[in-house]
Amino acid sequence: MPGNSLGLLFRVTTFGESHGPLVGVVIDGVPAGLPLSKDDVWLELKLRRPGQYLTSPRRESDEPDIVSGVFNGRTIGSPVTIIIRNRDVVSQYYEDIRFKPRPLHGDLPAYMKYGVDSWDYRGGGRLSARETAARVAAGAVAKKLLCARGVIVVSYLYSVGDVELERTPETVDVALRTRLSPVKCPDPDLEQRILSLLREVQESGDSIGGVVETLVFNVPPGLGDPVFDKLKADLAKAILSIPGCLAFELGEGIRMSKMRGSEIDEAIIVRDGVLRWEKNVQGGIIGGLSTGEIIKFRAYFKPTSSIRKPIRTVDLETYRETTITVKGRHDPCIAVRAVPVVEAMTAIILVDHMMRAGYISTDKLTLQELKNIETYWSLYRKYSPKS
Amino acid sequence: MPGNSLGLLFRVTTFGESHGPLVGVVIDGVPAGLPLSKDDVWLELKLRRPGQYLTSPRRESDEPDIVSGVFNGRTIGSPVTIIIRNRDVVSQYYEDIRFKPRPLHGDLPAYMKYGVDSWDYRGGGRLSARETAARVAAGAVAKKLLCARGVIVVSYLYSVGDVELERTPETVDVALRTRLSPVKCPDPDLEQRILSLLREVQESGDSIGGVVETLVFNVPPGLGDPVFDKLKADLAKAILSIPGCLAFELGEGIRMSKMRGSEIDEAIIVRDGVLRWEKNVQGGIIGGLSTGEIIKFRAYFKPTSSIRKPIRTVDLETYRETTITVKGRHDPCIAVRAVPVVEAMTAIILVDHMMRAGYISTDKLTLQELKNIETYWSLYRKYSPKS
Amino acid sequence: MPGNSLGLLFRVTTFGESHGPLVGVVIDGVPAGLPLSKDDVWLELKLRRPGQYLTSPRRESDEPDIVSGVFNGRTIGSPVTIIIRNRDVVSQYYEDIRFKPRPLHGDLPAYMKYGVDSWDYRGGGRLSARETAARVAAGAVAKKLLCARGVIVVSYLYSVGDVELERTPETVDVALRTRLSPVKCPDPDLEQRILSLLREVQESGDSIGGVVETLVFNVPPGLGDPVFDKLKADLAKAILSIPGCLAFELGEGIRMSKMRGSEIDEAIIVRDGVLRWEKNVQGGIIGGLSTGEIIKFRAYFKPTSSIRKPIRTVDLETYRETTITVKGRHDPCIAVRAVPVVEAMTAIILVDHMMRAGYISTDKLTLQELKNIETYWSLYRKYSPKS
Amino acid sequence: MPGNSLGLLFRVTTFGESHGPLVGVVIDGVPAGLPLSKDDVWLELKLRRPGQYLTSPRRESDEPDIVSGVFNGRTIGSPVTIIIRNRDVVSQYYEDIRFKPRPLHGDLPAYMKYGVDSWDYRGGGRLSARETAARVAAGAVAKKLLCARGVIVVSYLYSVGDVELERTPETVDVALRTRLSPVKCPDPDLEQRILSLLREVQESGDSIGGVVETLVFNVPPGLGDPVFDKLKADLAKAILSIPGCLAFELGEGIRMSKMRGSEIDEAIIVRDGVLRWEKNVQGGIIGGLSTGEIIKFRAYFKPTSSIRKPIRTVDLETYRETTITVKGRHDPCIAVRAVPVVEAMTAIILVDHMMRAGYISTDKLTLQELKNIETYWSLYRKYSPKS
Repeated sequence: MPGNSLGLLFRVTTFGESHGPLVGVVIDGVPAGLPLSKDDVWLELKLRRPGQYLTSPRRESDEPDIVSGVFNGRTIGSPVTIIIRNRDVVSQYYEDIRFKPRPLHGDLPAYMKYGVDSWDYRGGGRLSARETAARVAAGAVAKKLLCARGVIVVSYLYSVGDVELERTPETVDVALRTRLSPVKCPDPDLEQRILSLLREVQESGDSIGGVVETLVFNVPPGLGDPVFDKLKADLAKAILSIPGCLAFELGEGIRMSKMRGSEIDEAIIVRDGVLRWEKNVQGGIIGGLSTGEIIKFRAYFKPTSSIRKPIRTVDLETYRETTITVKGRHDPCIAVRAVPVVEAMTAIILVDHMMRAGYISTDKLTLQELKNIETYWSLYRKYSPKS
Repeated sequence: MPGNSLGLLFRVTTFGESHGPLVGVVIDGVPAGLPLSKDDVWLELKLRRPGQYLTSPRRESDEPDIVSGVFNGRTIGSPVTIIIRNRDVVSQYYEDIRFKPRPLHGDLPAYMKYGVDSWDYRGGGRLSARETAARVAAGAVAKKLLCARGVIVVSYLYSVGDVELERTPETVDVALRTRLSPVKCPDPDLEQRILSLLREVQESGDSIGGVVETLVFNVPPGLGDPVFDKLKADLAKAILSIPGCLAFELGEGIRMSKMRGSEIDEAIIVRDGVLRWEKNVQGGIIGGLSTGEIIKFRAYFKPTSSIRKPIRTVDLETYRETTITVKGRHDPCIAVRAVPVVEAMTAIILVDHMMRAGYISTDKLTLQELKNIETYWSLYRKYSPKS
Repeated sequence: MPGNSLGLLFRVTTFGESHGPLVGVVIDGVPAGLPLSKDDVWLELKLRRPGQYLTSPRRESDEPDIVSGVFNGRTIGSPVTIIIRNRDVVSQYYEDIRFKPRPLHGDLPAYMKYGVDSWDYRGGGRLSARETAARVAAGAVAKKLLCARGVIVVSYLYSVGDVELERTPETVDVALRTRLSPVKCPDPDLEQRILSLLREVQESGDSIGGVVETLVFNVPPGLGDPVFDKLKADLAKAILSIPGCLAFELGEGIRMSKMRGSEIDEAIIVRDGVLRWEKNVQGGIIGGLSTGEIIKFRAYFKPTSSIRKPIRTVDLETYRETTITVKGRHDPCIAVRAVPVVEAMTAIILVDHMMRAGYISTDKLTLQELKNIETYWSLYRKYSPKS
Repeated sequence: MPGNSLGLLFRVTTFGESHGPLVGVVIDGVPAGLPLSKDDVWLELKLRRPGQYLTSPRRESDEPDIVSGVFNGRTIGSPVTIIIRNRDVVSQYYEDIRFKPRPLHGDLPAYMKYGVDSWDYRGGGRLSARETAARVAAGAVAKKLLCARGVIVVSYLYSVGDVELERTPETVDVALRTRLSPVKCPDPDLEQRILSLLREVQESGDSIGGVVETLVFNVPPGLGDPVFDKLKADLAKAILSIPGCLAFELGEGIRMSKMRGSEIDEAIIVRDGVLRWEKNVQGGIIGGLSTGEIIKFRAYFKPTSSIRKPIRTVDLETYRETTITVKGRHDPCIAVRAVPVVEAMTAIILVDHMMRAGYISTDKLTLQELKNIETYWSLYRKYSPKS
């Protein structure tokens, strides 16, 4: 069943399995004229690359190849296809547990759907987080396009276990600086506490859950469509489509579900001649439409399922209960690596809705838009790790 | 922009404004042969009807008319259109506040999108909760179709403010019995505490947030599609498309985001010769695919925005800050009335994915399916309020 | 299966059966601010109305009702729903032939798909040409929107049997004048010959095929998308979706399929400083994209299937071969009545592609666009039959 | 704008430009379990390969690579991606005529849409017939899937200029044998006449139009959906999306548009206990639904635009009129090379509608289906050219 595409006007289709030759993405709907290089994409891929400090030991350069849609360094209005080869693939472990599915991975439901003989069980196959590299590649294109209108998307780590951020970043710069943090955390103190916690968790062979927060700056009002394609609805879908994500919260939605109306006290005010929401308690979206305030939401991730502890399962060849043990190092907190994926998915939804509302042409970019792209994309570049 | 349709094979399109002549829905993708009467639909509409105890005083009979797609009491494979006339419409209040938008209603973003001269501001226009009557009508058809495979969807009130359910209903009957509760609560003690709380809130002219929980019984494994159309993703979109809903949580997702992996301890086991998940911590969906266990998720709603307290806003004709006051009685907790809407949206997504996976034909129903529909639909009927 | 919607940004969904209470259409994607009255729609519906000279004797006023999406005479950005009640419905004849399907009507394939017990066989049910009234209603909205950019769509009768138009109308006025012709023919001499032919055909109890030609004036270049959504491809789908239409031809496509390249001799030239195609042999679309020249194509219709002559079929209750006879008067040439339907389908596709390319906003219309609408819509009104 | 995808359940997305590194296709919706090898795809690609007798001199091996969706020789339910590298690319000629667009190629409309600075003008870029290699690759997968239900699709040459086929092939074998003909012609005498004609045309530096006919055998009744997604409508769109195709005709549609109803004389009869249409005049589709008879339609192609004769155009750098001359050999009749493309597009539409009607699962294939695939696919293999 076709479930591998997302978007109406900016349409992203990913393909590839964890242990196949490559993962990739076709991006349909990119207007002509966008300067796009391999490095633009690689910049973003490096932020989710496995093999970094404290994360999974799979070593991939994640060097992307743009194989269609770009000519002389600029897009041509045709589908942009980006592929990322899989290199560091070791499948032996998955042969051993092929018939002993892990309870919190998708392999068993996939066996039920596609047949145990057909499904590519190696490394999670199509359900692997490896697929999210393709999303990040598409997100790079989406973010660059959003620069045409000065829209900046930033995701960062909000919490790990009980350790939680106290202050939302208030400026684009503070937010973007999280790109330089090894755990994508906007607060230097918190960063240290999270690093200690993650080390402790990893050393004990355990894992831990976490939360990713996202801000979108400079959003024009009126994005989203009433009823089913509300902006909050499309964001929720995109975010819940990320492996390991189990909840989505707009603004202070969960806290508000316990509050009284009188405690909220939002107001419309005039500031510098512009209509504004005083508190922006609903995260920049009201009635499903953007208000022009900063969009803010959270994505909740479960702990990594693979821990160094016996896991109870069933041997599908004998239908007897058994236990398996996960070997090697593992990524103790998927929320950390999910940060650039959340950012990418947000950008993909935003650019689609910007196109739907006519803010970005689907045919070609204007000179002013190209100038804006240069200005705003340099911000992302400025806050990118070297190498 | 077209945002008024949802679904790939079972496609629901709603139309109509709060103070226009009617609201309605076109349901495309209903197979031929389904017995469908006005009463089937009315049964469900009565559960969300305004004018009930403790809710908004707008009095509507919500009597539906099926105006296409049914012949001799059965569907014919053509779009089923259901209309519900608006009768109890008083627009004067909205004339008074036309240029003084309420901060937590969609009117101001809608003005920004569509133009202040065009938008139908009366009662929220297209963004009104009145539109959800059309969704409930479509949900009745969806739920009846799901009966073909014995799938039962039940939503109920999980919490109001801090008052929270302690035990998830474990059987279809216990769950369905909530349909008879004035506040859709599965626990009689809790029901009384919630009723007291709501009375107190209403008397003080305030409002309060709440949470709706949903269970889906007898789900076949393998529903949902990897990557973007994961079942959890499509559910999240559908739920977040409901007015006032600000968060979605699959299973114990929020709690799990604070836990360590070692605390979760899920296992695959064999029970009665069938593969099962021992704890079902992830709410029946893993890797985005249904596991065959009960699907469980929560929808978080903000407090009703309208309270008897001055609200600060801006007069759009003068651009001066001002205050408005909401008059009359109001519904103190939208979560209560949202229960049947959440149920309807869940059923719509489920039937679409059942069709995508081939469990329900989009052409015509079989005799066995018709028998199942009779059996399972009688359960919904059994637990429906008289009148 | 959902097959009742068309369009990406301007999305039309029709509903209703020939002998049900009504037919109707939901039009999603209409921007706010468009002046729209019942009379705008009725104007167009009258052009296809049954009961006119030489056509089917079913007498319907076809008075439309706009039941959503319009407030104070203007659209609000919400779905516009238009319904047209069925009044002159006599179903007895269809009871008689219920189990004796006509060979060139869709009833038998529909029985095979939906079940002979479920399908609404009265008057063709959902497959009846009655459904095209809903398309014409949507076409009225589409044509009015196209006026925002000065785009004018005109369909007319190109041939009946062997009697064929010799000269394509060259101006908007000549083309629009066909709206006043009883057989939608742009050439007065031809009109008389066609009228005689139709009379003769009808008197002999026979029917006859015909061809409808369409011109679109003032089309901007670059409409359509490469590969699958080429403008010619989307037009072909829309036109072939009309009952009785069996072929689509862009420009002089059929003649060109027999020609040598050297005979064609198209050239790009400069006229008044603008790039033009000298001959426009390909009907204004090259590479699937509009060129800015007049779009021109033909739709080929079979003869009306119902003739006063015994028709051989099978009695489905006995599986014996039998004959049936069609009673009463009938429409001798469906091509004549298809003219406004072709025009409507063309307008629907064009406005969708204008929106895709950013020529018409999906949020709201500008003042200049509203002015243009007034100017160009008055042309359609000018060439409309009184009453 | 996203126009590079086609299909609802079986969704094909192509990418790549004529002179870029590759062309390719992502096929979403392939059920798990289908045996699929590079050779299955190559078999079909060889039928459209450039460099064959009498066709364009570009020499490509067209060796495909399946880079996702297949594991151990079978599909896994994930998107199948196939890439075909471009090797024999010489762009110099296109540099020379970059600013002198050919009147019947899409370059000038593409310049107008995407900007003359952005568009990849080399070899037609995205609009090149090279893109159709990706369609043929997808068609191989579609045809193999159709074998699960015994459905066989065959396209062949119907006419070149005035030289026309007289007898429709009546059996699968006669039809499939055309795969072995250098001009895909089912009649040996006609083949010789066409070969002579093409030689003469080519020697005179000219080109010529042609028509492709398609038959689909063993189609179940009831495919297609009423109203917009009629089977004839979806076929027309798919066929008109092929470069150079200007008309589509179902059955004897064009001839019927000139006939009287009394001349047609179709009948429903019983043959071997099965309801049949005696003449199948409408090409196996009535009311937009398949009847179970052989589907038959024609696609009309213009002559190749490139001929050895001065072509009049405008120099875009000076806006002066000028002439260009096409160099080298060229393919005199695109209809010949379009044959496998028409076949592929037909198969893609058919498999999508088979899935929509539930004839082929989108999750996994059954054992019986796998057996059928072996049986019927061997027919295609049997009638394939060696090497």
